[in-house]
Amino acid sequence: MAKSSIRKLFSAASTNIRKLDVVDLTLGNPFGDPPQQFYRRLKHLIAKDKKHDYMDNAGYAMVRLAVAESLIKRRLMPKTLAGEDIIMTPGASGAINTVLKSILNPKDEVIVLSPYFPDYPRYIENHNGIPIIVTLTPPTFRLDIPLIEKAINKNTKAIIINSPNNPTGAVYTQSEIKSLHALLNKKNKLLGHPLYLLSDEPYREIIYEKRQMQDYISPAAGYRYSFMIYSFSKSLNIPGERIGYIAIHPSMPDIAMVRELLSQSQRILGFTCAPALMQKTITSLLFMKPDVAEYERKKNIMCSGLINNAYSFTEPKGTFYIFVQYPCQPELFLKLSQKHGLYTVPGQAFGSPEFFRIAFSRSDETLEKAVTLLGEIMRDIKLSR
Amino acid sequence: MAKSSIRKLFSAASTNIRKLDVVDLTLGNPFGDPPQQFYRRLKHLIAKDKKHDYMDNAGYAMVRLAVAESLIKRRLMPKTLAGEDIIMTPGASGAINTVLKSILNPKDEVIVLSPYFPDYPRYIENHNGIPIIVTLTPPTFRLDIPLIEKAINKNTKAIIINSPNNPTGAVYTQSEIKSLHALLNKKNKLLGHPLYLLSDEPYREIIYEKRQMQDYISPAAGYRYSFMIYSFSKSLNIPGERIGYIAIHPSMPDIAMVRELLSQSQRILGFTCAPALMQKTITSLLFMKPDVAEYERKKNIMCSGLINNAYSFTEPKGTFYIFVQYPCQPELFLKLSQKHGLYTVPGQAFGSPEFFRIAFSRSDETLEKAVTLLGEIMRDIKLSR
Repeated sequence: MAKSSIRKLFSAASTNIRKLDVVDLTLGNPFGDPPQQFYRRLKHLIAKDKKHDYMDNAGYAMVRLAVAESLIKRRLMPKTLAGEDIIMTPGASGAINTVLKSILNPKDEVIVLSPYFPDYPRYIENHNGIPIIVTLTPPTFRLDIPLIEKAINKNTKAIIINSPNNPTGAVYTQSEIKSLHALLNKKNKLLGHPLYLLSDEPYREIIYEKRQMQDYISPAAGYRYSFMIYSFSKSLNIPGERIGYIAIHPSMPDIAMVRELLSQSQRILGFTCAPALMQKTITSLLFMKPDVAEYERKKNIMCSGLINNAYSFTEPKGTFYIFVQYPCQPELFLKLSQKHGLYTVPGQAFGSPEFFRIAFSRSDETLEKAVTLLGEIMRDIKLSR
Repeated sequence: MAKSSIRKLFSAASTNIRKLDVVDLTLGNPFGDPPQQFYRRLKHLIAKDKKHDYMDNAGYAMVRLAVAESLIKRRLMPKTLAGEDIIMTPGASGAINTVLKSILNPKDEVIVLSPYFPDYPRYIENHNGIPIIVTLTPPTFRLDIPLIEKAINKNTKAIIINSPNNPTGAVYTQSEIKSLHALLNKKNKLLGHPLYLLSDEPYREIIYEKRQMQDYISPAAGYRYSFMIYSFSKSLNIPGERIGYIAIHPSMPDIAMVRELLSQSQRILGFTCAPALMQKTITSLLFMKPDVAEYERKKNIMCSGLINNAYSFTEPKGTFYIFVQYPCQPELFLKLSQKHGLYTVPGQAFGSPEFFRIAFSRSDETLEKAVTLLGEIMRDIKLSR
């Protein structure tokens, strides 16, 4: 079993942190504490509510209803969305596995767009599916419909989309998403079976262009075979608490059976249910958003630092990542990074060996140190030529 | 995918509860609220600690160390147990899946003793293993070493043991467990590969015989290929919060690799980590025990009621379940149960179609109603003859 590159580097950084003054830009933890409202809600619940029992595997009915209503109010899902269409899950990773367990037969193919979150292929293999990697074109990594079309065949069961994208920071446009829906609808008819769309959206509240943020439409909204996957990790700064959900598109055919399958899959996989106290906590925090202005400020610090040191990259439209081209052989860059004590994630982990990922969800101090180190590394590279 | 019988009946009971005054003895929720200490600890953490980030997949180092120390202090594991041998998990169900993912190759066989927790076979199938059901002999369902020996062959990779047992309430004696260890050691040598023992122990604090409770030795302690599986669901009354752990036997060969495998499996399966706040909460509650005297009182109410109404069963030595023989054809009993509004779980779900399971972790009022209904059902059965 391959060890996750992100975690391997994270462990390395943790080990070295006492020896060297390292700068760790590996792990995707959001920046800052959870909001005050999170603690107010927790205190309120602890004082009033003593219920921590098993509930329905899909979660508390009241929580599911509140989530559905929030998605309708924010126009992220059609008005027909019901509480029953929401399955509360332990984060997005639990949600994706629950969906895959429910839809995949052995050897079914699932399309993954590269660069990709490193565990997507593992998740597909957990359920005996076959990940089909479609490599998008650098440096912008746009949604390439003809490339996706080429990858679809009679064994294709699903596609996973992640916008805003980890690691590239790309945010797909409405027109790109509409083209994808059109392709999937066309192929559904041709193949005679549905192609499911898993829209993994933990970063949807971190988009930098104001108009794109206001006009944001979930890739899951306009296509009836969609599962929206969400995690509160980034909007509430609580990735360690494992709380998220699946929203089934309300027009999905056989929806009663699909709800039941998801609920049973969640149980059989050993997730059982999303943590009870966290379910109740998020219910009053469904409209909370991360501090995008603060992330934007940090993005600008890091982007300026990269530009000033002659690194090549596409400015991220969303997320708190920058996907940077290696300015030399990756091996040399890694060697020099270690020498200078800067940790980033090699793009190899995401299927893009010519890039590395920077997480800029860090203190300004850390970012400034990182910029200095990136400069020193670049000088060493030039000297080595 | 088969729907869990326990959950199906639970849903049925929930639906009917508004129409009929039903008595629901299906779901295995513990009785009562979490202890005051649980809320004190939570309040303390909320006031002092703002960290809810990703940590190492295996959990916080301090939490793992505290769990290891508590197991040594309680003589549940050898003194050599280290913090690194503990993997914090989202409950026992997450823990079992994480172990199975780490040890199973496709078509490996795992022995399950019947009656069994209904999801064990599903968990094994999740990882392409084959569940081999060894049917123990009613009505006592003792650990039958010759029967287990017959089931072991070159494809056998593991056995799952659950003592105190859900649904039978059996607690295996020290001598039974020693015989099992001897058998496994003998077979390890003959087969040339290890047979792993998964000891699922969420009920280990609910044992009724005082001497058996004091002398309690975990089935995982005396055998080096053991994984101890624990959940705080029953000791703290928080089954909905999903917090538990795996303890690897400290003498397990290749233990560094095993730790790493478990940690990576937990990530790849989508569990990612055990909920952060709950990890920190249980750290100061590791010596808490459920109110066994209260459970014993409830057990006595239910056992007397069953005896007075001429039901046949073996008195449970542990857990809060009673596994009762059907006094008639199961179909007739189910029909009469529905008529009278009493919900129990058919033994079919546990692989024992001639029995049904009662959970007596209920209010005295509910138990008294249940006894009345059991009497009425028995009268109807006699009338129908």
